[in-house]
Amino acid sequence: MARTAIWTSISTTLTTDIAEGRYGPGDKLPTEATLSARFGVNRHTVRRALAAMADDGLVHARRGAGVFVAQTPTDYPIGRRVRFHQNLTAAGRAPAKEILSLETRTADEREAEALDIAIGASVHVYDGLSLADGQAIALFRSVFPAERFPNILRDVDETKSVTAALLRHGVTDYTRASTRMTAKLANPTQALHLRITEGAPILRSVGINVDLDGAPIEFGHTWFAGDRVTLTVNNS
Amino acid sequence: MARTAIWTSISTTLTTDIAEGRYGPGDKLPTEATLSARFGVNRHTVRRALAAMADDGLVHARRGAGVFVAQTPTDYPIGRRVRFHQNLTAAGRAPAKEILSLETRTADEREAEALDIAIGASVHVYDGLSLADGQAIALFRSVFPAERFPNILRDVDETKSVTAALLRHGVTDYTRASTRMTAKLANPTQALHLRITEGAPILRSVGINVDLDGAPIEFGHTWFAGDRVTLTVNNS
Repeated sequence: MARTAIWTSISTTLTTDIAEGRYGPGDKLPTEATLSARFGVNRHTVRRALAAMADDGLVHARRGAGVFVAQTPTDYPIGRRVRFHQNLTAAGRAPAKEILSLETRTADEREAEALDIAIGASVHVYDGLSLADGQAIALFRSVFPAERFPNILRDVDETKSVTAALLRHGVTDYTRASTRMTAKLANPTQALHLRITEGAPILRSVGINVDLDGAPIEFGHTWFAGDRVTLTVNNS
Repeated sequence: MARTAIWTSISTTLTTDIAEGRYGPGDKLPTEATLSARFGVNRHTVRRALAAMADDGLVHARRGAGVFVAQTPTDYPIGRRVRFHQNLTAAGRAPAKEILSLETRTADEREAEALDIAIGASVHVYDGLSLADGQAIALFRSVFPAERFPNILRDVDETKSVTAALLRHGVTDYTRASTRMTAKLANPTQALHLRITEGAPILRSVGINVDLDGAPIEFGHTWFAGDRVTLTVNNS
């Protein structure tokens, strides 16, 4: 009982510090050693307090870097040009991508329809994780017609950028033809990658990007952690 | 145990009927009396089978009208003009609204900012339920500046239409300046109104409508049942 009270009181104190603005969104909290000294407890107790705060979405640990105050949700514009790198930079967040898998397989019915290719035609598929300031904000899957973009997986691997990989295949610009959005609950795999709870809200976006001639070049799914991103549409 | 087996086998049979297309999305299932006769069971057993299917989201009961096969999610365009009635009609669904409350109060900080009025200025607030073919698809809250639209609540009450009520106040056209979307989990009140499970996915949209001079006239929140609506943005 005594130990429970201690870590609870530490997390309450730190939560108050955050609420009162002593640590702002994105700020690094003091190290475990510093907090141990401040509260006069061992590191295990500090760690337990921080874990409870992470469960509440107040802070998140970045491996090897420390514990950071959670950001307010990132605005992510769904306009005529949807560019992950530009969107994040404009929101004042540092963009990064992690490749989860690169594979070539045959198109299923929906992919074939979206890309205007035959069912069973070859597609290159890029699964990955999008990060903002080191925090995972979305899982995504990009599907490309293999015939038109034979080396796209190599180029994605080398550049970590869809826009740069498409440019290497002669696509100088592309626009978002349509986006479809719905709310889902995180399945276990999504929860693991996004470091959220299973059953947490997910904002799923399905989009088709087309080249300047209107030909579909990318069929993409993105699963955003619901509390980390707000999708925005501006018509003004 | 025997009774459990019976209703389970009835729901399995009806689920197969739906999966094989004998009953399509939006179709009315046979009455309880007809189903009782078909399966040779009492109505209680039929009701139990239908309740289990409703829990799974396969069918939904419409009071006084019968039990209907669940629709596929309705596409709901978020474009320059967002009109509930037109959006639903275009999707082949019958639109309806239920008024939950009409009240006049002072604007909070966010409402004041969105409507470009002073904090504490008077606003008229319309809370309601949006239905498609008799099924609740969304909860909404529309906030209007009271000074500019003194009789909007009476007009909403009489017309059940925001567009018609605005027209009575001289607004011949209005457009959506911005929409912000995020995923949430249904709270108990939302679950009750939308007849979904607490913790089910909710797609929350927050939008500002402006008149032709760009002045904000409506600040709206909509909480869509995540599995009943897909928000769409088309740029082509």
